[in-house]
Amino acid sequence: MNDRPSIRLLPKSKPQAIRHGFPWVYFNELVMDRRTKGIEPGSLAVLEDADRQPMGLVAVNPASKITGRMLDGDPEAQIDAAWFEARLARALAHRERLYDAPFYRLVHAEADGLPGVVIDRFGDAAVIQPNAAWAETRLDLLVEALVAVTGVTTVVKSAAGRTRSLEGLDDADAVLRGDATGPIPVPMNGATYMADLTGGQKTGLFYDQRDNHAAVARLSRGARVLDMFSHVGGFALAALANGATHAVAVDGSAAALDLAQAGAEASGTADRFETRQGDAFDTLEALAAEGAVFDVVVCDPPAFAPAKAAREAGLRAYERIARLAAPLVAEGGYLTLCSCSHAADLSSFRNASARGIGKGGRRGQIVRTGFAAPDHPLLPQLAESGYLKALTFRL
Amino acid sequence: MNDRPSIRLLPKSKPQAIRHGFPWVYFNELVMDRRTKGIEPGSLAVLEDADRQPMGLVAVNPASKITGRMLDGDPEAQIDAAWFEARLARALAHRERLYDAPFYRLVHAEADGLPGVVIDRFGDAAVIQPNAAWAETRLDLLVEALVAVTGVTTVVKSAAGRTRSLEGLDDADAVLRGDATGPIPVPMNGATYMADLTGGQKTGLFYDQRDNHAAVARLSRGARVLDMFSHVGGFALAALANGATHAVAVDGSAAALDLAQAGAEASGTADRFETRQGDAFDTLEALAAEGAVFDVVVCDPPAFAPAKAAREAGLRAYERIARLAAPLVAEGGYLTLCSCSHAADLSSFRNASARGIGKGGRRGQIVRTGFAAPDHPLLPQLAESGYLKALTFRL
Repeated sequence: MNDRPSIRLLPKSKPQAIRHGFPWVYFNELVMDRRTKGIEPGSLAVLEDADRQPMGLVAVNPASKITGRMLDGDPEAQIDAAWFEARLARALAHRERLYDAPFYRLVHAEADGLPGVVIDRFGDAAVIQPNAAWAETRLDLLVEALVAVTGVTTVVKSAAGRTRSLEGLDDADAVLRGDATGPIPVPMNGATYMADLTGGQKTGLFYDQRDNHAAVARLSRGARVLDMFSHVGGFALAALANGATHAVAVDGSAAALDLAQAGAEASGTADRFETRQGDAFDTLEALAAEGAVFDVVVCDPPAFAPAKAAREAGLRAYERIARLAAPLVAEGGYLTLCSCSHAADLSSFRNASARGIGKGGRRGQIVRTGFAAPDHPLLPQLAESGYLKALTFRL
Repeated sequence: MNDRPSIRLLPKSKPQAIRHGFPWVYFNELVMDRRTKGIEPGSLAVLEDADRQPMGLVAVNPASKITGRMLDGDPEAQIDAAWFEARLARALAHRERLYDAPFYRLVHAEADGLPGVVIDRFGDAAVIQPNAAWAETRLDLLVEALVAVTGVTTVVKSAAGRTRSLEGLDDADAVLRGDATGPIPVPMNGATYMADLTGGQKTGLFYDQRDNHAAVARLSRGARVLDMFSHVGGFALAALANGATHAVAVDGSAAALDLAQAGAEASGTADRFETRQGDAFDTLEALAAEGAVFDVVVCDPPAFAPAKAAREAGLRAYERIARLAAPLVAEGGYLTLCSCSHAADLSSFRNASARGIGKGGRRGQIVRTGFAAPDHPLLPQLAESGYLKALTFRL
């Protein structure tokens, strides 16, 4: 007995991909009749194939191009506290296997069975991004389950996700439970980072770079390190904790650099740490003019090519970064270039980077290609969208 | 003053790629006149562009489709002991930065400036693969430089490289220096492996998997582990060293399993280790029939798709491995699938793996994508040929 509305695939739509685990149903695959268009965003519905056979339970948002998000293969599944708790417990088991301390991305959306939902954990606190309507409307239930499964006492809602507007959702942050004042110390790769869960423009921490931080740190013993677009000091603090002799963190945000400085102090490496506020391109040019040389240089810019339309301009920006950074690297030293752009695939990003290094008068060998850390799982069907890429060149 | 022969690019050939670091000149890019065809394999020549401007010093092999291999941007460079020592010293500096103990791939061919030359180091011993004619004819010089730079006392020549026949070289192994009897203990990821540098069909050790071994080991604490195509126990011994409760290594080679067993004994983990000789496909089916379940399963088969002609058959073999292995993985457990096939690109391999897991009745999220370890650098221009891929799925 199921009195839920149903939405139906068009005869031309191919149900196989969904049957094999593709989690999305696009608007142009569906019979978008008045009834479907009238479904309240975030409602549940039974997805049917063109022959009206039920395929599973979806969350519907007629206002989004991703009109259906598969929640459960069982069309009669109850999306209640127990359902949320089971998903969260499964996600938690993976992270507890990976990490000794409770600091990680706990939920990475579709791959963790919670479409559009991102949850980062910072010890007793969690930041939740409900980036899809179905999760926004069930936020209370989700937060209760989160508290029950993990025992966190502070829960912050971040509404900064770029995709929220596509779902018709607002951008209002909120503290939902507990007290989120003051930055939280986060142990990672031997350093201590300071994460501000509610502060200004840049908040929290980028757990996705953890393994890339570690790989760069491994190359940094006895090295002079330059961390461009440092945010709260991700690469610099890990390098210092692993024996770098000196690290300079450059960022446009004074607030981020303050947190980086506090992190260096908490890590006991402040005596080898320096911050420099400024535009990255300008600073790279200024450092070259000063004759600065580093054994390890990292550039981890914001997404220059977040969407297809920005792809070419983005690749040119990555090339420019590489061109300006390469001359600062000592002979035999290392240059790590990162891209968090969906639209810049690995091959294009690698080519742009190599081209930039060449234009910077250097040659490089690729010694490592890294992606997001394993607390950021991917559905194989969406794996091409693995956005984060980190290339380490030896020059 | 340069009395070396020259070889010349055809007017249609594009010199830019070579100027930007592409290391090879194909026969169909060159003026293949009688004089060029008559150059002794392994000789040096000056590469000229179509306008007879010198581009650099190449090693020539008219018998190979890769007729020219760029050795030095300076057409007058002397390929003498000092030249070899400089290349080896640069390669060594990178490995000494990466690893505390002298066990690694010391030279990874083109990316280390020694085209076609592979050298693996095992403490005081080294195995050298001179897979191009220029290196074969200069082997004495290369070995002397190797001894001078690293201090190794044993040098083994391995002629097993598949590409040697393309260069018209023989397949005769030899011990060039010292004594290579008995396996060498190799410390890696907390375990001790036994590497037999001169033994039967499978020799040495696969350093390229080191980081993938470590990533799987990290997931293996308290886990039951199955290591298919184990060779000398790469994944199994690392997992046991990291707290796996039990590991089974399966391989077709009794000699490899003897070394794996010796490694487990040297690692102090033999009480939790078991070997099983047999065909991998048969063994996977037998384990399923026995109702065996593992928390961590790894399949690291030989190259099923070593060349383009074998691509489709190879991908079907990878799919079959995934289909047979997936049912052996506990709910919430991990399946790592590896490919060392040049012809199976990451995307195709991922799709074949996901398809196989689906046909095995399971679903998986990708938690990690790994490549060869950083002692296996790549030229950006040849980076598409990054042959080794390791995908870890959570099922």
